[in-house]
Parts: sequence; structure tokens; C-alpha cells
Amino acid sequence: MEIILAKRAGFCFGVKRATQMAFEAADKGGETFTLGPIIHSPQVVQKLKEMGVGLLDDLSTLDNGTIIIRSHGVTAEELEEAVRKQLEIIDATCPFVKKAQEHVKSLSQAGYDVVVVGDADHPEVQGIVSYATGKVYVVGSGEEAGQLPRMGKVGIVAQTTQSFENLKNVVKECLMKGGEIRVFNTICDATAVRQEEAKELARKADCMIVIGGFNSANTRRLAEVCKELLPKTHHIETAAELKQEWFTGVTKIGVTAGASTPMWIIDEVIERLKLMGND
Amino acid sequence: MEIILAKRAGFCFGVKRATQMAFEAADKGGETFTLGPIIHSPQVVQKLKEMGVGLLDDLSTLDNGTIIIRSHGVTAEELEEAVRKQLEIIDATCPFVKKAQEHVKSLSQAGYDVVVVGDADHPEVQGIVSYATGKVYVVGSGEEAGQLPRMGKVGIVAQTTQSFENLKNVVKECLMKGGEIRVFNTICDATAVRQEEAKELARKADCMIVIGGFNSANTRRLAEVCKELLPKTHHIETAAELKQEWFTGVTKIGVTAGASTPMWIIDEVIERLKLMGND
Repeated sequence: MEIILAKRAGFCFGVKRATQMAFEAADKGGETFTLGPIIHSPQVVQKLKEMGVGLLDDLSTLDNGTIIIRSHGVTAEELEEAVRKQLEIIDATCPFVKKAQEHVKSLSQAGYDVVVVGDADHPEVQGIVSYATGKVYVVGSGEEAGQLPRMGKVGIVAQTTQSFENLKNVVKECLMKGGEIRVFNTICDATAVRQEEAKELARKADCMIVIGGFNSANTRRLAEVCKELLPKTHHIETAAELKQEWFTGVTKIGVTAGASTPMWIIDEVIERLKLMGND
Repeated sequence: MEIILAKRAGFCFGVKRATQMAFEAADKGGETFTLGPIIHSPQVVQKLKEMGVGLLDDLSTLDNGTIIIRSHGVTAEELEEAVRKQLEIIDATCPFVKKAQEHVKSLSQAGYDVVVVGDADHPEVQGIVSYATGKVYVVGSGEEAGQLPRMGKVGIVAQTTQSFENLKNVVKECLMKGGEIRVFNTICDATAVRQEEAKELARKADCMIVIGGFNSANTRRLAEVCKELLPKTHHIETAAELKQEWFTGVTKIGVTAGASTPMWIIDEVIERLKLMGND
């Protein structure tokens, strides 16, 4: 049984950076927490917990110590609260997300109505949106953008993991909404590149294993695009979920992983697959 | 024979304003010239000539007197030359065109590479383009925009008579060309509204008469869209070109006119048509 691992499987730049910052803080010790899960990987969150780094949903109970800002970022209000409480802040917000937050802030201050292309329920989007000081709208598609009211100057940014096609459709609709449209393309192509590679793999494999948190939107989407090409696609979080029966008659297994999947979990899966292949 | 005149036939706001300014200057007398034809109407140019207002292609031969800047605008260099020569300047540039020129200038100064959506040979576009101090490209379609090189910050404006669809297609392509795209929608909807009205008329008439200069792009386009719906469409400049044979069996004539067609020419056509209808 041949096992092919996608070149871009696992951590993207921002996740890698955030995880490193969190583990370094854990090594230092002291009262340390992350505000929200540091990345969308229950296993990384669990490992940090074992190292003494707790997980807080908000800052109401914390009066001193160190707070780590997760890769998706937090809202402007949460960051302000941390500053006000004089907590030690380790800001592990992905630099690409930070850029989107800054564009929203400056567009808003310059009098633009802001449109954020993304999923309104996603913490990254909630963080980005919070930096607007004027009107701000979240739209998931060109169709939704078509429902927006007439605006003055329109500023547009995107959730970093959005598809380029979606951004294009929103921009097209917004051209009819105001006299000036200013678009910052804040999409990070790591997601698109990973998906393209996974699709290529799904086309030549008999079975695909997609590894990553069930709460990770990019991993779920990755599994979906593979499944469209290869119904024998399985989304797992850890090696323990692998089932021998999936591999009956399989000669080529493709493996990829979401942006928040640590290498050690990918390695465990590969090892287990090798053992299964020898059975 | 019923004659229906389109509500928006003839002069648009910018042309009306420019013509008025030119005739007022003519009334005042003195050594007065227009730099390029004041509007794309040979009849208006001829009338001004009869009133003593000459037509210059460039300023090389003029050392004093009054120069009238046409509705389409001129290049930044031509305007500078007029200022340097201390000529009296009457700037009849359409305010919408002026806006596009100003946007190009400020985008350029702010470090944007500028894309102008329009016809590179049109004097309006040549004027707009001249205000760029950095890189500037003219594209006629989304397809052409796709050929542009990768840029830094991209600023986009459109020739005022472009179709909105064309602007959208260019913007879509440019989203792939740079990290920031700033679009000023400089399209004046007079052209679109006029075309829509003409199409409506062409659908219910047996014959369409489109009046306007053969050198007027908007009139030519107006005749084209009518002809697509009604092959019995005729583009004329003056009443003298009307032919009785066009109206055999015709019961309903639609009449419209381009943005640079003066009312007196439209009136003459209507009068002649009435006479022909009585034959």
C-alpha cells in the first residue's frame, strides 16, 4: 500500500507561529491562558493544558498573568480589556489577519462603509469586524452583497481563508453600491494551494485521509473538496480513528491535513497507516 | 405617420454646459478659439465658426486671446501650455470628465498604478491618461485587463461613457493584479439611460432615426444598439439626409439623438419627418 503525503499538509505560517509562541510561553511557566483556543486543534489545546496553559472564553475572571491571543485574533474590545487590566499580552494573531483588522480600522476612520467577505460566525471575522468604527457588513456571497444598501465610499476586505471567486463576486456587486470601491485583497493563498494539491492527490489515490479538528472550517472544506472527487475520503482528528476496513483493496492512499493540524498528529497517522498496510 | 421623440434625446449635462460656455464666449467677441472641436457635432462647430470662434488642433500658433477647453477635456500638457502662454482659458471640460482626471492625478500621486477603462484613441481618454504621473494603462475590456502585468496598488477609473458591465469585468481581472484595488466609478449614466430608452423605442417603432455626428462615438453606439433590434435604423447628421423611401409602409417612427446633438437639429429633423408623413 503506497502512502502519499501532500506537500502542504498541516500548519500554515500563521498557525505555526501562534503554536510556537504558545509553547514558548508554556515553557516559561507562570499564570498563562489563551483567549479562545489558540488554533482549531483540540490536541494542541490539550497539550498546552497539560503544560499549564489554560483556556479562557473571556477575560472577566482574569486579573493578572499572561494572556495569549489566538491565531484568528480577538475583538478590539477584548484586546482593550487585556490592556486595561495590564495583563501581559502575547499577540499570536496571524499577521495576515492582523492586516485585515488594520485595513478595516483605517478604512472605517477614513469614512468608508466596510464590507467583510466571510462567515459571520467565524471568530476571525468577528475580530476583523470589531475594528470598524463606522458602518460594517459581513457578506458570505455575491448574492448577499447584492442585498446591501446604497453606500458612500465602500471598503472591502476578506476573511483570509475565503475563495478568490467569492471576493470577486462581492466586489462586482459592490461596484453598484457606491461611487468609490476600495478593495484590500486579504486572502492568504495557503488555503487555495492546499486545496488544489489535495484535489490532485484525490484524483490519483484510491482513498484519501484528511486530518484535522472537526471544529476547523478549513479542514472540513478540505475533506469536502476531496470527497467530491473521491467518495472514499475520511476526515479524522487522530490516528485512533483509522479503520482497517477502509483500506480493503486500496493500493494508493493520499494524506493531507488542515492548517491547524500539528505535524506530530500527521506523523502518527502515517505510522499507523504503514502498520495497516503490512497487515 | 406617428413620430415619437425619445425623452433623453440630445445634449447631456456636460455638452449643454460646454456649448453654452462657447456661445457666451462667442457673443463676447475677441480672438477666441476652441482647442479641438468643442463637442462632437460638426454643426455646432460650424455655427461657432460663423460667430468668429476658430478651431485649433494645438496651441503652437496661438500667443494671445481666449482658448476654450472642449467638453472631453484636453491633456495636462495642453492646459499647462495655455497657462504658460497666459491665454484666457474657458474650461468647458465636462465636470464628470474633470473628476476622472482628478482621480487619476491623485491616485498616481498616492503611488497607484492607474488603469483607465476606455477607448485609447478617444480624446477624453487621452486627456484623462495625461494626468497620471506614474504608470498608466488603457484597457478596452476585461480580456485586455487580463494581459496587464502584476502591479502594486491598482487605481481604476473609466471613460465617462463606458458601460458598467465593462468596468465590472476589468475590476474582476485587476483583483488578481495587485493587493489593493481602488475603483472610482466615473461612469455617467446619461449614456446608459439614453440607450435603454432608445431600445425601448426601437422595440415599438417600425423605423428609427438616430441623429448625431458621424464622429460621435456615443451616437454611433446608439445607432448600433437600435439596429440590433430594428434593422430599419438610420444614423443621420442633419434633416437633409432623410430619404422619403425609408418610410414606405412605416406608421411609427422613433427618433433619438446622441449626447452632442443640438436641439435645433433634432427640431429640423422632426419638422422634415412631419412633412414627409403628409406626402
